[in-house]
Amino acid sequence: MVFQGEPGAYSEIVAMKLFPKSETISRKMFQDIFEALDDGTAKFGVVPVENSIEGSVNEIYDLLLDTNKIVSGEFFLRINHCLIANLGHRETIKRIYSHPQAIAQCRNYIRSNKFEAIPTYDTAGAVRLIKEKKIKDGAAIASKRAAEINQMKILDESIEDKKNNYTRFLILSDVETEPSGNDRTSLIFGLRNRPSSLFFVLEEFATRKINLTKIESRPTKEKPWEYNFYVDIEGHQKDKNVHEVIDSMRKKTTFLKILGSYKKGTQ
Amino acid sequence: MVFQGEPGAYSEIVAMKLFPKSETISRKMFQDIFEALDDGTAKFGVVPVENSIEGSVNEIYDLLLDTNKIVSGEFFLRINHCLIANLGHRETIKRIYSHPQAIAQCRNYIRSNKFEAIPTYDTAGAVRLIKEKKIKDGAAIASKRAAEINQMKILDESIEDKKNNYTRFLILSDVETEPSGNDRTSLIFGLRNRPSSLFFVLEEFATRKINLTKIESRPTKEKPWEYNFYVDIEGHQKDKNVHEVIDSMRKKTTFLKILGSYKKGTQ
Repeated sequence: MVFQGEPGAYSEIVAMKLFPKSETISRKMFQDIFEALDDGTAKFGVVPVENSIEGSVNEIYDLLLDTNKIVSGEFFLRINHCLIANLGHRETIKRIYSHPQAIAQCRNYIRSNKFEAIPTYDTAGAVRLIKEKKIKDGAAIASKRAAEINQMKILDESIEDKKNNYTRFLILSDVETEPSGNDRTSLIFGLRNRPSSLFFVLEEFATRKINLTKIESRPTKEKPWEYNFYVDIEGHQKDKNVHEVIDSMRKKTTFLKILGSYKKGTQ
Repeated sequence: MVFQGEPGAYSEIVAMKLFPKSETISRKMFQDIFEALDDGTAKFGVVPVENSIEGSVNEIYDLLLDTNKIVSGEFFLRINHCLIANLGHRETIKRIYSHPQAIAQCRNYIRSNKFEAIPTYDTAGAVRLIKEKKIKDGAAIASKRAAEINQMKILDESIEDKKNNYTRFLILSDVETEPSGNDRTSLIFGLRNRPSSLFFVLEEFATRKINLTKIESRPTKEKPWEYNFYVDIEGHQKDKNVHEVIDSMRKKTTFLKILGSYKKGTQ
């Protein structure tokens, strides 16, 4: 199972929970996950798509548009950020190293401690950085596991500003998931740039009483201010009403891509 | 006019184009702009809300939810990224310093040159950083103006991957803008978590033939996976049909905030 980040990254924690007996393969960038799936290095990949506080991970949405892998599962992880350093004294800490999204999630904590925030490409990578460079006035924000793997001190736990902090991960593979009775289906579609075109697509869901659990727009990158829409709906594409709505959407969209149907994750 | 970043930032270029005779006030973080408006340090502020390639600037959307300032204008700036360094030789460059969004916009260029990307808090700030630290194997991605202000060498121009790269800026102040006949209105609203609730709001626009130019969802931060919706529509709140739609939306939303009506910017 391939994930982005270094050992101890939140994505690796998800990979280990889902496939405890499988090897985890670390990759530097999100794009590398899709490449490792394409070239057969890994059968499964795990990607964060959305955080309950910060919102969508835009880059993943763009990569999902181009992949031929399918979504075969989802997982919700409660995010518990720790302050991690070489030495055990919080008083000497002046600078915080972490991924920009982790920094954003601990904004109030960082401000009230008057720390300076320095963005890095990965939470667990920040822990390794301050360990290797023997930085004494800096600390990283990362998981407890990242501290343990690197044998570093935990100065503070649960430093995230909001406690209802969950990240939603998707599992990518070639594996189609059968209906479980409690499923979600993820779709991407484009619309003609006309008044009400989104309304007429949503009407298809509304008349069939299909619940939208998420709607997100992303630039098409082809023409400025034209958007693709990313929609999650309740149900499986093999369910009759979902199957019907997909059929009717084909006539009302410029393109339609079914990312996959999968069992809903639990929080 | 207050902007985020250092002199030479794209936001400052917009501020100077809009108010050529007014002083520009530089602030480190987006939040500082809203504070400078609140405490009367500046009458006008300029914030980037969306880029045609990378999508929305999430943090601004969150700050707009809480501000009591109104949107009184918009401006589209064509983004032209330059590679900026101390010396005039591209061969010695190994590392690229810039804001994460500028890095993302030059992803292919960075990859094809096998540069390592290092995120910084600001594009123009990255230019100053490599100047002050006399970094010889690093270059910044920033505006031509940032190179000129810092008297640095431009190694390459127009290095953005896609040429249709525009950023949309909003002007914030206490000033209400009168209808011009070519206006846009920005709204934020919340919905009850029920099937079709978004559909029933969009129906109000559709029946009045009001064009939606943008729809975006952001987490409420109160309850996981509940969203606020950010919508831009064509027309001014003093126009009859927009006035009517706002009235009818009050009954169908859990809250409704009108950010402002303003003359559309041109590209």
